[in-house]
Amino acid sequence: MSLNIVMAQINLCVGDISGNVKKIIDAAQRARQEHQAQLVIFPELTLTGYPPEDLLLRPSFLEAVEQAVEELTSAISGIKLLVGYPVRKQGKLFNAAGLLGDGKVHVEYLKQALPNYSVFDEKRYFSPGIDAVVFNHQGVNFGITICEDVWENEPVEMAVKAGAQVILNLNASPFDSDKRNQRETLLQTQASKHGVAIIYVNLVGGQDELVFDGGSMAVRESGHIVYRAGFFQEALLPVNCDLDLEARLPVPFSEDKLSLIHRALVMGIRDYVQKNGFHGAVLGLSGGIDSALVLALAVEALGSDQVEVLSMPSRYTLDMSNEDALLQAEKLAVKHACIPIEKPFSAFMELLSSEFEGLEADTTEENIQARCRGILLMAISNKKGKILLTTGNKSEMSVGYATLYGDMAGGFAPIKDCPKMLVYELARYCNRDGEVIPQRVIDRPPSAELRPDQKDTDSLPDYEILDEILELYVEQDASAQNIVERGFEEATVRRIIRLVDINEYKRRQAPPGVKITQRAYGRDRRYPMTNRFRSDML
Amino acid sequence: MSLNIVMAQINLCVGDISGNVKKIIDAAQRARQEHQAQLVIFPELTLTGYPPEDLLLRPSFLEAVEQAVEELTSAISGIKLLVGYPVRKQGKLFNAAGLLGDGKVHVEYLKQALPNYSVFDEKRYFSPGIDAVVFNHQGVNFGITICEDVWENEPVEMAVKAGAQVILNLNASPFDSDKRNQRETLLQTQASKHGVAIIYVNLVGGQDELVFDGGSMAVRESGHIVYRAGFFQEALLPVNCDLDLEARLPVPFSEDKLSLIHRALVMGIRDYVQKNGFHGAVLGLSGGIDSALVLALAVEALGSDQVEVLSMPSRYTLDMSNEDALLQAEKLAVKHACIPIEKPFSAFMELLSSEFEGLEADTTEENIQARCRGILLMAISNKKGKILLTTGNKSEMSVGYATLYGDMAGGFAPIKDCPKMLVYELARYCNRDGEVIPQRVIDRPPSAELRPDQKDTDSLPDYEILDEILELYVEQDASAQNIVERGFEEATVRRIIRLVDINEYKRRQAPPGVKITQRAYGRDRRYPMTNRFRSDML
Repeated sequence: MSLNIVMAQINLCVGDISGNVKKIIDAAQRARQEHQAQLVIFPELTLTGYPPEDLLLRPSFLEAVEQAVEELTSAISGIKLLVGYPVRKQGKLFNAAGLLGDGKVHVEYLKQALPNYSVFDEKRYFSPGIDAVVFNHQGVNFGITICEDVWENEPVEMAVKAGAQVILNLNASPFDSDKRNQRETLLQTQASKHGVAIIYVNLVGGQDELVFDGGSMAVRESGHIVYRAGFFQEALLPVNCDLDLEARLPVPFSEDKLSLIHRALVMGIRDYVQKNGFHGAVLGLSGGIDSALVLALAVEALGSDQVEVLSMPSRYTLDMSNEDALLQAEKLAVKHACIPIEKPFSAFMELLSSEFEGLEADTTEENIQARCRGILLMAISNKKGKILLTTGNKSEMSVGYATLYGDMAGGFAPIKDCPKMLVYELARYCNRDGEVIPQRVIDRPPSAELRPDQKDTDSLPDYEILDEILELYVEQDASAQNIVERGFEEATVRRIIRLVDINEYKRRQAPPGVKITQRAYGRDRRYPMTNRFRSDML
Repeated sequence: MSLNIVMAQINLCVGDISGNVKKIIDAAQRARQEHQAQLVIFPELTLTGYPPEDLLLRPSFLEAVEQAVEELTSAISGIKLLVGYPVRKQGKLFNAAGLLGDGKVHVEYLKQALPNYSVFDEKRYFSPGIDAVVFNHQGVNFGITICEDVWENEPVEMAVKAGAQVILNLNASPFDSDKRNQRETLLQTQASKHGVAIIYVNLVGGQDELVFDGGSMAVRESGHIVYRAGFFQEALLPVNCDLDLEARLPVPFSEDKLSLIHRALVMGIRDYVQKNGFHGAVLGLSGGIDSALVLALAVEALGSDQVEVLSMPSRYTLDMSNEDALLQAEKLAVKHACIPIEKPFSAFMELLSSEFEGLEADTTEENIQARCRGILLMAISNKKGKILLTTGNKSEMSVGYATLYGDMAGGFAPIKDCPKMLVYELARYCNRDGEVIPQRVIDRPPSAELRPDQKDTDSLPDYEILDEILELYVEQDASAQNIVERGFEEATVRRIIRLVDINEYKRRQAPPGVKITQRAYGRDRRYPMTNRFRSDML
């Protein structure tokens, strides 16, 4: 006899407990109607969305969850759901998965391995469970684990010792560009090592800095992957679960890293904008590559009618920049306006003339230009209820080559975790089916256009070199000496590291954006601002 | 025979390992010369400062610490130091305290209780120790614990069972307005419960959002406090430690809460500015109470010659405001300039006229004024290397009654954790020895002066009411229903809670400021921005 299981890879919203309950009930009904499902597996913390952060400290939030568990339990009959939620027991809080249906919570598993690194803070909220939970359904013994549990040995081993033949694993595993391979290798290793099949259900959707990419899968005890849901999309994927998970619908997977990053960015934008109820987006289009890429991504995420752009030339803006901005806006059919910043800029310079008397021009004057643009963009954002998308990339966020309250202004910064070289790759990728970013924007040397004939390379090394140094220092925690030993020029390495260190205060005030690397700025990398450690000297 | 111990309550800087080593050596020498000390106790993580955050993930940082421990150990002879530092053992990292001297680490204790709540993330970095450490020095058995250890029962009990007669506790315990009483009660309880004397040494100084207040103390096994160091100041306090800690210098403590908060704010400003190497501070002086208080605090922290102010009147600014700003600047002898914002403001309005055609005036126009001021202040900050102090209070940060990139612009926001009613109390306190804040600034009704005849109470309830609702909701996690049951008007409660919830995105981009309440915005309160939980409805 075969048992139909459905992996419910759905997009939930943090805090939207009643909305999430509706989504769960809807998925359960469809799983039964379309796939004759007897058991549906949902992502980690299904009811609250992930991560609920300090909402978990509010008693009223936990009460709302408890009510929702009751409602859901009594709303479901003739089918069982494995659903995640926080649960209070003996004065402690646990990250739980309950098997619900027919008015009962049949079993409840409490997560044992609580991640407290990178973007995760689960030990801030949860106590660890200590027991394996195995339940029998139609003759099959199912063990339950939650996310991090399968990244460690013990919870899986305990479940198998308790008789589990198939492990059901609920996940909220955020995307980064290497995560897919890590997950696959992990599941294959765990399955074959412990001789147990694993059904891995992941969340999908954007939440502040994170994008959950789905990619749910089922792995035989041999380690062979037999089912796989798509990435960055909701899916109800049926798994015909006799003991060796016979393949009914094996999904080959061939998407490359670049296309996954691209989809992560698009989903990250769409979900931040839509889940927060904005009436579309606005951004400053300079004729440079960063804003060109953000525009292309925003149009994919939201549609042309939901995006508008503003060009804000100064005395230093080249005609080429204005032309290319207009060209792209026309190509993508987005509303475009052009407001030169000369008037407010000269008004500020005049007002400051006595304060600045006798002092040399420096980046202050450049910052004023960037901030005039920030004011115009925020004015449109405020007046029209459109979110301002910030167009900075990770390379400039790293070294502080950006103006706080100027080009750093905005509600969401889609490419803030994309190094500049990746920005180029993504721009070319966006043009794969026809030019949406003018070729000249991709080809011309990058410039902030804040003073005559300025080029990024006046202040920074070539981006090929900069990005490699930054990855070693920021993502891999390499020391200056380590990096120099790899063949980079010592003075450059020390200067770049120093710039990263002294610009922490800027990043602390930056808008959130999509994490796509192994270590993004934001909750993922927590540095003191007051910090006298001279990383550049070691 | 008596044993001289010195509590070294010193101000360390995060990351400044070599500077901290120098401070330790200097304190040790003075403790020996001035107090014939045989043993000196330092605060938690002495070598790195607290909290080092993700610096702890850098191998080069940990190597630098290891070298520093060696250097320090060989530099010290004829006296023993109990010093805190992170230590790597068996692939794990521990928060340790080592007894150093005469070229040796005599014993090393590994912290057992790792706080991972509120502002603390110690489980992100450290593994817990499992053993008590007791050492004998001149016939006395000393147990070692670190900070959180004494807030729990087990580490103290284990030390006593292992023979400790006196417990030496190294701390980095940040200030909040109730912490002093909590600490005293705790130490008295632990000492008398376990029949053990406790010497409690706390860090002093500001670090980003935190201020460590010192107040080190020694408690007899009876629970009687016999020594106490001052608050918010460095001190080398000798404790004549025969077994019952005979009192040589009992310090009576009578300072009230308001004066402690005041000192926390002053130290927080001074240390942020000085540890980050700014050439003084600048702030916008509006004639309102918030900026008046920040100016008074900044002058106390930095001195008149290190502070300058800018008044930036608009068409809506009353003469009274300009007069009072000038009056205060003169009283405090700070550089004062006045730059009206009319010109850039009208330039922006003109530029936006076609975009805004047919749309009603709203807060957009108010925000543009605030942002013109932000540009002027940041220009002076950038040009002169002076940090911009942000003048917003906790009440307005809570409900979003502030303009992002406008009055929220700045590097440090001293009173961001002070509710408005406390701002009034602090302003009166600043005038205790003579008027430094003009009385009219304190007496007049608060107004943002961003439109004609505007008053804060047009948009918000009276601050007495607002602040009480906010404390219940933000600090105590009360539900809307709880708050209504306390007698507040339901519609007001729901509106305020809603405002707090939807303004999380603003707070995420706010500058840091001094934590003085039990729950500050920042690392202390971690809320999702994308959050559909309707706290206002529950």
